[in-house]
Amino acid sequence: MNTPHRRRGARGVPRVRDLPTRIDATGTRRETDALGTVEVPADRYWGARTQRALIHFAIGDDRMPKAVYHAYGHVKKAAALVNGRQERLAGWQADLIAHVADEVVSGALDDHFPLYVWQDGSGTQTNTNVNEVISNRAIQLVGGVMGSKDPVHPDDHVNLGQSANDTFPTAMHIAAVRILHDPLLPQVSLLQEAIAAKSRAWYEVVKTGRTHLRDALPLSVGQEWSGYAAQLSDALERLRATLPDLYQLAIGGTAVGTGLGAPEGFGRAVAQEIAGATGHPFKVASNSFAAQSGVDTMVAASAGLRGLAVPLMKIANDIRWLASGPRCGIGELTLPVNEPGSTGMPGKVNPSQCEAMIMVCTQVLADDGAVAHAGTQGNFQLNAARPLVISDFLRSARILADACEKLREYCVEGIELNREQIDDYLARSLMLVTALAPEIGRDKADEIAHKAAAEGMTLREAAIASGHIGAEDFDRIVDPRKMARLRDG
Amino acid sequence: MNTPHRRRGARGVPRVRDLPTRIDATGTRRETDALGTVEVPADRYWGARTQRALIHFAIGDDRMPKAVYHAYGHVKKAAALVNGRQERLAGWQADLIAHVADEVVSGALDDHFPLYVWQDGSGTQTNTNVNEVISNRAIQLVGGVMGSKDPVHPDDHVNLGQSANDTFPTAMHIAAVRILHDPLLPQVSLLQEAIAAKSRAWYEVVKTGRTHLRDALPLSVGQEWSGYAAQLSDALERLRATLPDLYQLAIGGTAVGTGLGAPEGFGRAVAQEIAGATGHPFKVASNSFAAQSGVDTMVAASAGLRGLAVPLMKIANDIRWLASGPRCGIGELTLPVNEPGSTGMPGKVNPSQCEAMIMVCTQVLADDGAVAHAGTQGNFQLNAARPLVISDFLRSARILADACEKLREYCVEGIELNREQIDDYLARSLMLVTALAPEIGRDKADEIAHKAAAEGMTLREAAIASGHIGAEDFDRIVDPRKMARLRDG
Amino acid sequence: MNTPHRRRGARGVPRVRDLPTRIDATGTRRETDALGTVEVPADRYWGARTQRALIHFAIGDDRMPKAVYHAYGHVKKAAALVNGRQERLAGWQADLIAHVADEVVSGALDDHFPLYVWQDGSGTQTNTNVNEVISNRAIQLVGGVMGSKDPVHPDDHVNLGQSANDTFPTAMHIAAVRILHDPLLPQVSLLQEAIAAKSRAWYEVVKTGRTHLRDALPLSVGQEWSGYAAQLSDALERLRATLPDLYQLAIGGTAVGTGLGAPEGFGRAVAQEIAGATGHPFKVASNSFAAQSGVDTMVAASAGLRGLAVPLMKIANDIRWLASGPRCGIGELTLPVNEPGSTGMPGKVNPSQCEAMIMVCTQVLADDGAVAHAGTQGNFQLNAARPLVISDFLRSARILADACEKLREYCVEGIELNREQIDDYLARSLMLVTALAPEIGRDKADEIAHKAAAEGMTLREAAIASGHIGAEDFDRIVDPRKMARLRDG
Amino acid sequence: MNTPHRRRGARGVPRVRDLPTRIDATGTRRETDALGTVEVPADRYWGARTQRALIHFAIGDDRMPKAVYHAYGHVKKAAALVNGRQERLAGWQADLIAHVADEVVSGALDDHFPLYVWQDGSGTQTNTNVNEVISNRAIQLVGGVMGSKDPVHPDDHVNLGQSANDTFPTAMHIAAVRILHDPLLPQVSLLQEAIAAKSRAWYEVVKTGRTHLRDALPLSVGQEWSGYAAQLSDALERLRATLPDLYQLAIGGTAVGTGLGAPEGFGRAVAQEIAGATGHPFKVASNSFAAQSGVDTMVAASAGLRGLAVPLMKIANDIRWLASGPRCGIGELTLPVNEPGSTGMPGKVNPSQCEAMIMVCTQVLADDGAVAHAGTQGNFQLNAARPLVISDFLRSARILADACEKLREYCVEGIELNREQIDDYLARSLMLVTALAPEIGRDKADEIAHKAAAEGMTLREAAIASGHIGAEDFDRIVDPRKMARLRDG
Repeated sequence: MNTPHRRRGARGVPRVRDLPTRIDATGTRRETDALGTVEVPADRYWGARTQRALIHFAIGDDRMPKAVYHAYGHVKKAAALVNGRQERLAGWQADLIAHVADEVVSGALDDHFPLYVWQDGSGTQTNTNVNEVISNRAIQLVGGVMGSKDPVHPDDHVNLGQSANDTFPTAMHIAAVRILHDPLLPQVSLLQEAIAAKSRAWYEVVKTGRTHLRDALPLSVGQEWSGYAAQLSDALERLRATLPDLYQLAIGGTAVGTGLGAPEGFGRAVAQEIAGATGHPFKVASNSFAAQSGVDTMVAASAGLRGLAVPLMKIANDIRWLASGPRCGIGELTLPVNEPGSTGMPGKVNPSQCEAMIMVCTQVLADDGAVAHAGTQGNFQLNAARPLVISDFLRSARILADACEKLREYCVEGIELNREQIDDYLARSLMLVTALAPEIGRDKADEIAHKAAAEGMTLREAAIASGHIGAEDFDRIVDPRKMARLRDG
Repeated sequence: MNTPHRRRGARGVPRVRDLPTRIDATGTRRETDALGTVEVPADRYWGARTQRALIHFAIGDDRMPKAVYHAYGHVKKAAALVNGRQERLAGWQADLIAHVADEVVSGALDDHFPLYVWQDGSGTQTNTNVNEVISNRAIQLVGGVMGSKDPVHPDDHVNLGQSANDTFPTAMHIAAVRILHDPLLPQVSLLQEAIAAKSRAWYEVVKTGRTHLRDALPLSVGQEWSGYAAQLSDALERLRATLPDLYQLAIGGTAVGTGLGAPEGFGRAVAQEIAGATGHPFKVASNSFAAQSGVDTMVAASAGLRGLAVPLMKIANDIRWLASGPRCGIGELTLPVNEPGSTGMPGKVNPSQCEAMIMVCTQVLADDGAVAHAGTQGNFQLNAARPLVISDFLRSARILADACEKLREYCVEGIELNREQIDDYLARSLMLVTALAPEIGRDKADEIAHKAAAEGMTLREAAIASGHIGAEDFDRIVDPRKMARLRDG
Repeated sequence: MNTPHRRRGARGVPRVRDLPTRIDATGTRRETDALGTVEVPADRYWGARTQRALIHFAIGDDRMPKAVYHAYGHVKKAAALVNGRQERLAGWQADLIAHVADEVVSGALDDHFPLYVWQDGSGTQTNTNVNEVISNRAIQLVGGVMGSKDPVHPDDHVNLGQSANDTFPTAMHIAAVRILHDPLLPQVSLLQEAIAAKSRAWYEVVKTGRTHLRDALPLSVGQEWSGYAAQLSDALERLRATLPDLYQLAIGGTAVGTGLGAPEGFGRAVAQEIAGATGHPFKVASNSFAAQSGVDTMVAASAGLRGLAVPLMKIANDIRWLASGPRCGIGELTLPVNEPGSTGMPGKVNPSQCEAMIMVCTQVLADDGAVAHAGTQGNFQLNAARPLVISDFLRSARILADACEKLREYCVEGIELNREQIDDYLARSLMLVTALAPEIGRDKADEIAHKAAAEGMTLREAAIASGHIGAEDFDRIVDPRKMARLRDG
Repeated sequence: MNTPHRRRGARGVPRVRDLPTRIDATGTRRETDALGTVEVPADRYWGARTQRALIHFAIGDDRMPKAVYHAYGHVKKAAALVNGRQERLAGWQADLIAHVADEVVSGALDDHFPLYVWQDGSGTQTNTNVNEVISNRAIQLVGGVMGSKDPVHPDDHVNLGQSANDTFPTAMHIAAVRILHDPLLPQVSLLQEAIAAKSRAWYEVVKTGRTHLRDALPLSVGQEWSGYAAQLSDALERLRATLPDLYQLAIGGTAVGTGLGAPEGFGRAVAQEIAGATGHPFKVASNSFAAQSGVDTMVAASAGLRGLAVPLMKIANDIRWLASGPRCGIGELTLPVNEPGSTGMPGKVNPSQCEAMIMVCTQVLADDGAVAHAGTQGNFQLNAARPLVISDFLRSARILADACEKLREYCVEGIELNREQIDDYLARSLMLVTALAPEIGRDKADEIAHKAAAEGMTLREAAIASGHIGAEDFDRIVDPRKMARLRDG
């Protein structure tokens, strides 16, 4: 957490050059921090503390998602502008930081954010990485000496009025909001619409229903798919309902929530800047102590992701089972051919998109559990599992979005009905007898059903053979369309 | 799923006696179903199929929660009244079923619902149990022959226009809504209020903050507890937001969602009855296919429970750590003494309520995971893991409610501050130096902090000894109250 | 934790009467503890602290499993005998406690152990409950005054040399070992054998294989079921491998693992007694600090339970899918009819045992997760989530055992093959073409397969129609038995 | 699954050139598969099907771990050598494939394995990727036309006698065994040894124990740490015990487990080759149907990883709490300073390595749950969640290994005791009174303890002030070393 300090004096406003986001240097550069001097790669903007973190936290291959850094760009820009407006930074300093922060947002500096997910639990290292990169990039732009921290200091200027403890949760919310708005919500919506379109297209096609995996009363394919569409709409609605809480930002609370080191109203002003820059209605959190010591909003948003995975897994499972076969399964659906099957066999088209989706959903449920458990583990003024939370959240959102896109494009949109099979099942199902009972009495209906079952006949054949009813009456009464309660066209 | 049939004829309206809800008989009674005859305990109302289920599904000790049966009472009553109004049941039949259903709701017939959670996945056995018990109890009330299914048949009358596939999810939602309204939401609210009261009472008491478990900037105890209160308020709000979806009932969809066997508008009418009887705004689900093939609303509501468990675990953990000691821990809080410690040692008061809460929350997270996984496992027109879902949900809601009540009554309300310890920590904390830097410069401030650290002095002692600042100035500048940004009283 | 004290003096050895395990009294009795006096139900043996716990921890309906108390009976008996032998208890005291402990083991005192799972995290209340009940029951047997703690004191005698911190984990291990030995391992073995028997019976029946739910190369039903049998054998083996760690008991460590308050060798002697009494090779844990501060052995054993649930869920799923239909599903298996289907439809037999098993497995996975998370939450010298751990473990073991028994008895043993369907699928499968390629070349084989696919013919029909091969050659070459690599009979 | 075919004829043995593993080409190259022609990047070895998979499964950023490809190199080499020996491949073909497979094992071709985790559930795309890359690289080495599949065909030669269904689980086991052997088991062992060394070094330092976070009886720091060491040893032992099952390879089962397409004994021979090449005792799985339709061995091995995470999280938590402070926490440990704290405050050293470890463990538990759930979801002859299983397993193993290394190097090895604080706590703890009771009687001991508590004195002060005991006697009797039962030096 950094406190304000005296502004750059009379030395005047440095000229900002137009330089590409790279350092033309090789070998290493010396950077310093409170513990001393560190060699960093000369072509990287980061400083001593980032370099130390790279060594101390070289755990696995999981990197802090770039989306967190892009979000951090918004935070640093907004803070700089507010600090500039309030004259705690010189105007040119504020503008310079804002300019570099824009580069961070744009992804142009992505190569300079190398840290791992598994760092300290407040995201200190990531905040520092951003501060150091902005400092050195700003220094480069004004022709200063990289590593000198002059005239833009990573702590005193870039981090002014901030702490990892309030900026990291702020960046988390921004990143979460952004990935929900794009690509997750649109991609799920597109899948939902593709499914709804199938539901409409197949509304009149009556099929046998199945409960407990057993032949059951008929419904239409369209009705079945309307259920999928409704499940996704509802899940989307629930996910959208988590946005208002995500719009609340911890910024302004600084180290422990009291805001010491930031002026009154700093959080509100920064949140407003961020809202303006992103187009999302961000505002300062109503209780900074809750916002900094918990990740409850993220846990709730993660439940929203899980709420998508649950029906998506059901739908993907239904599709692959309905497409099972081609000859020794259910075989009601024909999936598009995206890749050769594992053999050259005709019809050996694996439901690979469904399988990918099922794995994605399984992972989303697991990561959601990790997020919730991480949420329970805060202590006092800090939840120290934030890097895990945001990393898992962004991963889940991303793979859900992509898997929805692929499932739509390479599976759902190309699915065709195997009408012959559907009709055949319907004709063979004994469940249609349900329609006979009210007309010819339950006893006779039962007799017909048992006859059909015993002799391997269709219900229609057995009914006519029974003498209890004629073909014409049978066809009038046992009308699957009516049984499915389809509205007349 | 049962279809309407001819109503009881001219035989007249039987007289309903006023009999206690018990059968004065010993030994066994013969009951029948499609598979034949079964001996059931003579003093129980259930029939053949319940008895079979008792044998076939004798798995563990987990019984279907009584709350599900009570909810089912509402369903059966409402269905009977609607069936009566629409003349598919005789008026007296409808009234009789409604009367017995009221007994079910009241819990008077609880002993007659013996089944286990682990039954078939649609809750068929539980629906049947209710139908059989209502049938026999109704028969008893009109002096009929128990087991005769006359004049109130479990399928043809009690289950008329219904299926396990629509009634069980309906009963799930009713049971869920009821337990949320009482006791869960009120008990959490009471705890939240107790915490908020503590926050107000301790608003002015400044303490050392802690991040990463390290001494950090000061805040007030009241600020800290305001965070707890805010977390619970937010979690309550999110849980309440799951109610509108729970108000949507699957009733009317019958076996596969098409509603075959129930008249048009049946679901709407039954939902309306249930709304009237319970006082909650239940209505028929907008898409019956989604409502019957998924449990997504329950998964979302379960996330609401988890959303409580996450901050509750954090709060319980904070309390037990803040009360750790008495002499070798943090020791800022003194917990009420509810039971003798494990030894006779003075001050050996274990944070047992916190530990119970932590275990409860751990279980709630696990059961929430089970609910979500169960939600992924539906196939076609049915989710066949409903008994698990409702059992886990009701268990979680119940233990959360009770644990909140106990934590409030036996812990939170009786917590006292150990002011001496709190003040002592604050005086000893080196973090107060943060306030000095803007006044005397960072270098001198650092020098003082290092001196204090090295020589084991308080910051005040080191400051004065340093000669950089006088006692009076120190006390004016280093004002923890100001550092905590407390509003002036 | 209780330290030794002076033994009962010269007052002589009281006479032990032969009394049933009940108290003929009504109303309440006064019991005392360090906090004062409490009214307890006069017909219960428990004392003041149990009564307080009943009030303070009335959370939900989950009771500490009786198996924990039965295991505790072994602990208390063994400790008393060792204490008696070492003359820290009078011989008659030791014998009396051992006698009552036998009653505890037998379940005769079950009604006197009313506490909830959600108590303090070390199981203090449960240990106390046992101590108090044994004390009062012993007092009753020698004609003393209930509640007087004389001549058998709950702490000074029954708990002598012990602490909840070492006895509770000891009782956990004993209870876990016992439930594994009976009923879990035998019941899973019986199911495994029933499946193996089916595998042998159906070894020669060739069917179409399925991968990705798509028709694949043939294998025999027996081969398929041999896979199930092997999965269960392996899982049983892994579960058995957790026993040696469970045989290690924490007893002797007393409060923090050092054993203060117990004589040297106490734990070893007590473990030996328990081994003798139970017939299981219990011994004292090699590191008492690990044994008391962690529940790692329980986490490993829980993974063993999960290791059963994983293949059981797969097997139950396979069975219900292979039995799906009867006409609109896969339909290779016919399940036994245990209960009428939800309707009167012939063949509408729901795979209810499979569904119950699937729910059981889902819950076992969830509870296993709770156990693991509880395992992470120990602090310093104690894991304070033990009641959750043992409760979830015993529940999982029990429902797995029962579900295996039911699945075997009411499903697996009665399953029959639908040979017609199996043969029909095999004849229709195009995958048999794989056998043709090496003989007639891949191009011709492909041509035949495509012809069969396009014209809806069997492969045999298409092959003969193609002119590339005669019927006799086809039958010789395309021999599913050979393709399945069945050993010749 | 590919069947043998005629070997390359008289054309002679092509010369194998010595070329670096790269293609000097730009733009795209045309590759073909059963569905037609695809443009692939000209500088990549992969073929048409890999390219399609890159498009169809572009889901997130999670790539199939390179370790799976390296393991696949072993499989392809071993299969080629066996096929060559049995003359189903020409000797030079076998050698050529083996040569390229060695390059795969070495990682030299890593850039040519671009696929995502989320592909089809059997890993078909990954198997195909390997086949295509080996084919084209082999073609390059003999001067053929890339994409021509001649003279080394991806299916007919590289995949000869194999299927994704048996090779992918084989590669999974190889990759799992390799990562366990290096780096996981060694890194955990090193951490275990570092902890054991601390335990020995601090064996005589007596401190206050803590149960329920409350001051408890004394033990030595060394005893405490011996518990950590024992927990890790036991967890290591349990993890090692999962290796024998992992040594069993599915190879030889081909598509459905029957081995059609592979000669008798193929699996055994290939497993033997792999054993020779890797130095691990791999052998063919005893039941190929179980091996291909389940992932139970991986679930068990994953439980082994979790078994490490559980005590590691406990240990990391203990360390950060014992190091909490410096002045307002427990403060018994001093952690090494790896990075500047978030502020310039002296002593503000965050337990960042512990926090990283805690997050890692949280993720490992979550991924273990995903693996188990994936294990339940197999159907018939295939578990179709294998990519998730191996990806999560390898990730967990890797982050555990790295986190152990970092925790050891940057935390455990540098931890120092804060003796002053430890001694001070011990002196202040009232629990020492336990030692007094047997000597002066419980009543007097209690009196002293209460006096100390009430008046804020140490127990020694209160004891002497009480007049019940002199200073000398007190020091003799109240000897924490004896209370901790330390062996005399």
